[in-house]
Amino acid sequence: MSGLSLTHISGSRFAPLVVLELASDTKEEAIAWLLSRIRDWQQNGGAELLVEQLGPGIGVEEKENPNMFLVGASMQRLLCGAEDLGLFKECTDGSMRAFTFASKHNFKDFKGDGDGFLSMAECQYVIKHELDTLRAKEETNVPGYSHAKLYPGKSIIRRLLSKGILIQMFPLHENEELKRLSFSWYKKVKVSLQPLDDIRHYYGEGQALYFGFLEYFTFALVPMALIGVPYYLFDWEDYDKYVVFAVFNLIWCTVILELWKRRSASLAYYWGTLCRKKAFEEPRPGFHGVLGHNPVTGRAEPIYPTSKRHLRVYLVSLPFVLLCLYLSLYIMMIYFQMEGWALSIYDENPTFWTHILLFIPSIIYAVVIEAMNLIYRYAAEFLTEWENHRLESSYQNHLVLKVLVFNFFNCFASLFYIAFVMQDMELLRQSLATLLITSQILNQFMEAFLPYWLQRRRNKKMIRKIQKRRLYEEKELPLVEQVRLEADMSTYLGTFDDYLELFLLFGYVSLFSCVFPLAAVLVVLNNITEVYSDAFKMCRVFKRPFADPAANIGVWQLAFEAMSVIAVVTNCALIGMSPQVRSYFPESETQLILCTVAAEHVLLGFKFILTFLIQDVPKHIQDKLARLEFESLEALKKKVKSDSALTFFTLLPLSKLLPVL
Amino acid sequence: MSGLSLTHISGSRFAPLVVLELASDTKEEAIAWLLSRIRDWQQNGGAELLVEQLGPGIGVEEKENPNMFLVGASMQRLLCGAEDLGLFKECTDGSMRAFTFASKHNFKDFKGDGDGFLSMAECQYVIKHELDTLRAKEETNVPGYSHAKLYPGKSIIRRLLSKGILIQMFPLHENEELKRLSFSWYKKVKVSLQPLDDIRHYYGEGQALYFGFLEYFTFALVPMALIGVPYYLFDWEDYDKYVVFAVFNLIWCTVILELWKRRSASLAYYWGTLCRKKAFEEPRPGFHGVLGHNPVTGRAEPIYPTSKRHLRVYLVSLPFVLLCLYLSLYIMMIYFQMEGWALSIYDENPTFWTHILLFIPSIIYAVVIEAMNLIYRYAAEFLTEWENHRLESSYQNHLVLKVLVFNFFNCFASLFYIAFVMQDMELLRQSLATLLITSQILNQFMEAFLPYWLQRRRNKKMIRKIQKRRLYEEKELPLVEQVRLEADMSTYLGTFDDYLELFLLFGYVSLFSCVFPLAAVLVVLNNITEVYSDAFKMCRVFKRPFADPAANIGVWQLAFEAMSVIAVVTNCALIGMSPQVRSYFPESETQLILCTVAAEHVLLGFKFILTFLIQDVPKHIQDKLARLEFESLEALKKKVKSDSALTFFTLLPLSKLLPVL
Repeated sequence: MSGLSLTHISGSRFAPLVVLELASDTKEEAIAWLLSRIRDWQQNGGAELLVEQLGPGIGVEEKENPNMFLVGASMQRLLCGAEDLGLFKECTDGSMRAFTFASKHNFKDFKGDGDGFLSMAECQYVIKHELDTLRAKEETNVPGYSHAKLYPGKSIIRRLLSKGILIQMFPLHENEELKRLSFSWYKKVKVSLQPLDDIRHYYGEGQALYFGFLEYFTFALVPMALIGVPYYLFDWEDYDKYVVFAVFNLIWCTVILELWKRRSASLAYYWGTLCRKKAFEEPRPGFHGVLGHNPVTGRAEPIYPTSKRHLRVYLVSLPFVLLCLYLSLYIMMIYFQMEGWALSIYDENPTFWTHILLFIPSIIYAVVIEAMNLIYRYAAEFLTEWENHRLESSYQNHLVLKVLVFNFFNCFASLFYIAFVMQDMELLRQSLATLLITSQILNQFMEAFLPYWLQRRRNKKMIRKIQKRRLYEEKELPLVEQVRLEADMSTYLGTFDDYLELFLLFGYVSLFSCVFPLAAVLVVLNNITEVYSDAFKMCRVFKRPFADPAANIGVWQLAFEAMSVIAVVTNCALIGMSPQVRSYFPESETQLILCTVAAEHVLLGFKFILTFLIQDVPKHIQDKLARLEFESLEALKKKVKSDSALTFFTLLPLSKLLPVL
Repeated sequence: MSGLSLTHISGSRFAPLVVLELASDTKEEAIAWLLSRIRDWQQNGGAELLVEQLGPGIGVEEKENPNMFLVGASMQRLLCGAEDLGLFKECTDGSMRAFTFASKHNFKDFKGDGDGFLSMAECQYVIKHELDTLRAKEETNVPGYSHAKLYPGKSIIRRLLSKGILIQMFPLHENEELKRLSFSWYKKVKVSLQPLDDIRHYYGEGQALYFGFLEYFTFALVPMALIGVPYYLFDWEDYDKYVVFAVFNLIWCTVILELWKRRSASLAYYWGTLCRKKAFEEPRPGFHGVLGHNPVTGRAEPIYPTSKRHLRVYLVSLPFVLLCLYLSLYIMMIYFQMEGWALSIYDENPTFWTHILLFIPSIIYAVVIEAMNLIYRYAAEFLTEWENHRLESSYQNHLVLKVLVFNFFNCFASLFYIAFVMQDMELLRQSLATLLITSQILNQFMEAFLPYWLQRRRNKKMIRKIQKRRLYEEKELPLVEQVRLEADMSTYLGTFDDYLELFLLFGYVSLFSCVFPLAAVLVVLNNITEVYSDAFKMCRVFKRPFADPAANIGVWQLAFEAMSVIAVVTNCALIGMSPQVRSYFPESETQLILCTVAAEHVLLGFKFILTFLIQDVPKHIQDKLARLEFESLEALKKKVKSDSALTFFTLLPLSKLLPVL
């Protein structure tokens, strides 16, 4: 593990893994109680972890928070935690199996007492899990805080977080490892792929799958980009040639999504998350309700009736989303009116100033869209929180769905309007190009460079402080400063926004790229810079996030597939509207539409069949999974048999056995 | 269990469960070898079952087959077999758990040594499984049959079946039980539901699910029938009123299929098949290939490359199916030409004979369709056999798909042609009515009464023989005669044809019933008689089938859902073509089509969302399943911990422990 060690601030040696930051005005009794619970033995209901307070920094100032704690654990404890979590690791025979302490020597890379067997990210995940499942016993409230109610079985950390006593809990970076990773990831100019295994090793499976998807998506776009370039070079104004391109588009977006499932399953298998059994999911921190008993675990926990949640979802959230969509549509119509009005003024009196006026509506609309997305995002988070979902996964799904629908509508409504109501392909192409290029530039700036710049400004202050004592260039930052630096870094809020961006880009390419064949080229360029800027922000801008052992990209797979279905409809309609196709049906428009609709239905049916035919998990991994399943069934059979023998044996009274000895 | 017992033909008492019929010219050494393998202890690789030869009948004739064997087992053996199979039974606390011999007293209805705990169907299923998994050891061929090759691990029964040495293996009926069941099922006129639990008890889950589906489907049709009757009574000629009916149709067929999933999950949960882990599926008897090692189990078994099978499927079967579809289409066109030609002759010269001529094309077409279905069925079975699928389930899926597509096409192509090409609603209604009524009458006759009549004729011969000795009316048939009678009964070939019939009926109702609102009424009537005739044929016509522990209706759920998607498209098109809707778009046909297509897409999208929203498994069963999962995870955790403690303990040398004693 890392070179960090706490010897210089306390007597006991342990590698700090996770930082707990309590509010600076936390009462002493609460701190003492929390620390004792964390350190207590597991059989007493404690977490059996090591924890130390962080010492004061160099050049102490008044505003520094003294209540920062470093948490670590012994190797034995971490291995047991990994077993509890059912982490899958590679065995010496190359298969992936759930780690158990008893069979530890069957695992690859397990040497001595297991040092280096678990990656630091895994250790931090274990610690997070142990802290999260640290439960109240008889306490009715947090000592010193009568309003922070507890009941037997309530997660202490979750209550402290929800009451604001615990400000944050984050894992520490490993500077050496991070330097190596960032070098192989984005610091050297290279043609090779991203170091996905290293990313997974450092950030966990969820992050690595995002970068894997980003990379896969970029490569999948290359054929589109290659076909798009000659279209751009030779047929720019001759956009009725796009039928071939649209057909290619259709097949492409179905096939790549299916193949991604296979790739994702391969990655997840080798990372050990594909067949890992999820532990029973605990309620999320914000969930509240009347105290009752969970029907599954039988444990005390808040109960909130599903029917009430359904009422909130269908009677409040759904109408709200529909209202927002209507509003967005209304604003779009105002934009088109304004544009028509500006055009008419320009036509009447074409001066420089009226020419400038032509751009005003677009600019206003772009700003309004961004503002609406932002406001809506807050509203969606508020509403989803208010819906009071029991599980984090269910909360995320509802949030993603709300944001997705609105963003899709906001970004694509005007394009759909131009394409199918105005039927102005020239304008569609222009709007698409403008949208793609501006959103790309804005995104890269807002996402990575702005936070980095803010970060640097903060860092400089601290570095200056330290430089008062010694030269920064010569030595590494001491641990204390390092921890405080990281605590000040922005918190990475998950892959949501990154996936959303990819989703919208996928939409631009799959829906309309036949009209603007350069779209794929632009998206490829964007993705390449995105890899670098995302890698950069992960390594330099944000706190290290906790690993998230994901087996797939979850609800996003569904979102991308829904988009590809919409793409079939859109592309068929664009094909039907092309002058090339129209010329085949010179007299009858009805015939044209019927043929287009028939073709669309056939394509949708074919897409559906293709989804069935292409298996989601590659054959060799299916075999491995089946083998694991088969072995566990066989083992169970043997076990049951030996158990019944054992039961039989123990039924004999001990006195009958003793004389034999 | 049943009152049957073998005391009067052999010394050892056991209840016969399953009959094995070997070819009458089977060599003695093969019989002796087979019996010894069946009787041998399990640790020697035998099946540890009881088996006796059936004695000669009363009034022995030359042609009677002497090689009939009765198989049974001790209660202990059956219970162990049930444990091996992972049968789920109800516990005393009301939950469903996998039966284990060690925990037998936790199960409801387990008394004494377990007599009556397993139903006879379950016992027979256990015996079938034990016989099926009776594997060759060092034998290289069946003794006396050098061409019947064996290799270590090959299922003996499967080899005997594929070489024609074993003619059949079937479970025995229980006369008492059967009488009770048939009385409550179809002999009394009743308004109550079918005795599904009793059916499941006697025939197993697969059969019971079919009857459950039949019943559910009938009830689901009642609202359609109720709405259809006033349509028929008041608006018969005013068929442009069908828009409301079509919309209702659409919603109805989506909702009932979703709700069926829930009902099916409920039934399967209480029958213990929902969460039963399937054992590793063995290759089907007909599967052949080069001997190799299974990558999953590591056992010796034939290997056939998937790529070769794919070549056969895509390069031979698929083109063949397409060719058949084309042929069917071609014959349909000939039919319409013949009909036009007959009509023109009638118009020219309207006499009685030319009026008769009008019916000739329909009759020829109906006969040709039936013949084609029959021939195609054989071709499909041959092709699917030739594709050499490893698993029975995969074989079944490919067969169902082939037969389904062709039958759908054959039955509905002419209706589609009339509806959308000829656009003659009057003719459509007439064809639909004719098809429904004739197919209904034919089916009931062919399916139950014809086989029953044939059966009766055969039985009468035997009964006459017996009556020579004593009066049949007074006494039950003796066991020997009973077994020979059952061996002569037809073999029930599974629920395939029954489901296919329901599938086509569902098609008539969901696709076109808005044109002929009485369709639902006719189908309800058909289903009611179907319940009786199916029940009758199960009880009286066929050999008892082995139980099939199905958790759902399998590929048929998918088939019905596909049909309901096609129904959306068809109904939207019918709505779009109705004069009522047309009158809203008096000048523009394009507008009408675009609106129809838009409505169709919205409905398809809505249907898709509905499928997501309605959960497949009811909440309270989800909770129970989650509880089982949770408990097994918790138990595993504890087990692992105690195991590691044990491992630790056993690492200490025994000599260190002994002094303590």
